[in-house]
Amino acid sequence: MISKNQIKWVRQLEMKKFRQREGLFVAEGPKVVGDLLACGYVPQQLFATPEWKGWNGADGLPGDDSRRFACEEWTEVNDEELRRLSFLQHPQQVLAVFPIPQSRSELQGTRRLSLVLDGVQDPGNLGTIIRMADWFGIDTIYCSPETADAWNPKVVQATMGSIARVNIIYINIAELLGSTTLPVYGTLLDGENIYEQELGDEGFIVMGNEGNGISPSVRPLVTRKLLIPAFSNSTTSRAESLNVAIATAIVCSEFRRRVKK
Amino acid sequence: MISKNQIKWVRQLEMKKFRQREGLFVAEGPKVVGDLLACGYVPQQLFATPEWKGWNGADGLPGDDSRRFACEEWTEVNDEELRRLSFLQHPQQVLAVFPIPQSRSELQGTRRLSLVLDGVQDPGNLGTIIRMADWFGIDTIYCSPETADAWNPKVVQATMGSIARVNIIYINIAELLGSTTLPVYGTLLDGENIYEQELGDEGFIVMGNEGNGISPSVRPLVTRKLLIPAFSNSTTSRAESLNVAIATAIVCSEFRRRVKK
Repeated sequence: MISKNQIKWVRQLEMKKFRQREGLFVAEGPKVVGDLLACGYVPQQLFATPEWKGWNGADGLPGDDSRRFACEEWTEVNDEELRRLSFLQHPQQVLAVFPIPQSRSELQGTRRLSLVLDGVQDPGNLGTIIRMADWFGIDTIYCSPETADAWNPKVVQATMGSIARVNIIYINIAELLGSTTLPVYGTLLDGENIYEQELGDEGFIVMGNEGNGISPSVRPLVTRKLLIPAFSNSTTSRAESLNVAIATAIVCSEFRRRVKK
Repeated sequence: MISKNQIKWVRQLEMKKFRQREGLFVAEGPKVVGDLLACGYVPQQLFATPEWKGWNGADGLPGDDSRRFACEEWTEVNDEELRRLSFLQHPQQVLAVFPIPQSRSELQGTRRLSLVLDGVQDPGNLGTIIRMADWFGIDTIYCSPETADAWNPKVVQATMGSIARVNIIYINIAELLGSTTLPVYGTLLDGENIYEQELGDEGFIVMGNEGNGISPSVRPLVTRKLLIPAFSNSTTSRAESLNVAIATAIVCSEFRRRVKK
């Protein structure tokens, strides 16, 4: 049995202000919650229906017979109660409230490939980018303060669990990029054909805002300008741009296809 | 001044059943409506605020001083009227109702690269794929009947105008692929590393459903199995899959990067 206050408290976590004040975020469904538990995230509250396989340590979750996973408080709910808590159109067995992790701040001196998001606005795009970064083995994403909040329930769901494995750091990206000696890659209209470039396995890949691209203050910090060429048959017109998540995928794929395995 | 009946009629076009019965779809905003007008689409109804630059043939639209663009009927509306018509959270100056184009059925014998969507469900994914196809010069997308409807307002908006330039054909894709002599490419778990393959500039690229991939009836028709390899640092776990629009982008990019310009 859950109270009206519990429902109100969970539902308020839709708002960034409330998430920041409480230091908490919501994740839903066996896949996303399961990935977070498997990565050692400890829920402050967990609500699940009897059908959830996580109760008995199934579904690849850590735990043993006596204690299935670490959790401060859990409540068994029925479908109707879960529906009232959930942010999803089709609630999926489990909803958990986790502490927002402290960003590991091993910024300087890391010699690997990271993503830098300069004002990506759409939660779906941000979630898709986090999921893809995980796929391509990019373990850190730096976000400008103008970028959408990664702990927004929509973003968390769109990552399909990858948010458990990718380190998200909100930071002044102009300062970050201004102080690095590593290459700073960015897609710009006057960039060079990415398909023909040598690309290393360390540095920063900057992706800009959906409408405006890389911001004027960050543009001069890009040391390697790249361009994804279009291949239109049409002589009159074609798509003027790619969706930012799509462009990020193509850029990351170009870096990773050059890695000798 | 618009009537309640006009509003109701436009709003009903959110439903596939109604779109099919009327043979009409809705597009909104100067970019999407402008691209459709520029490609010769003739709106059956057009509603726009006085701010819309399309009224006087500006914004790259075809037309001259006397007749700005072909249109059966147009109505000047105020912001409040547009808001009541619109499917968008932030309506953008113009909303137009266009006839759904007849698919050009030049199927067989076309010797070029086409996309085949086998049950892509999410309107956002479908719209993003149409936009990307336009970017990569892929002018035809074949969709199984289970694929989301391309004339859904959400899809139309997500294409950012590219729906005006890409030919969308709903068809029995098993029949289509069963009768072709061209290569049929598809991403499957037992496929070969796409980064190391020779890929031609003709054939069909099959992309599957978000949850289930390529359907069992279509899988045996794939003659060239491809795999997008993951590059995870983690030894324990990583993203299990890519979003279908992201995977489509990576595959299309691999085909186009091999084209000698």
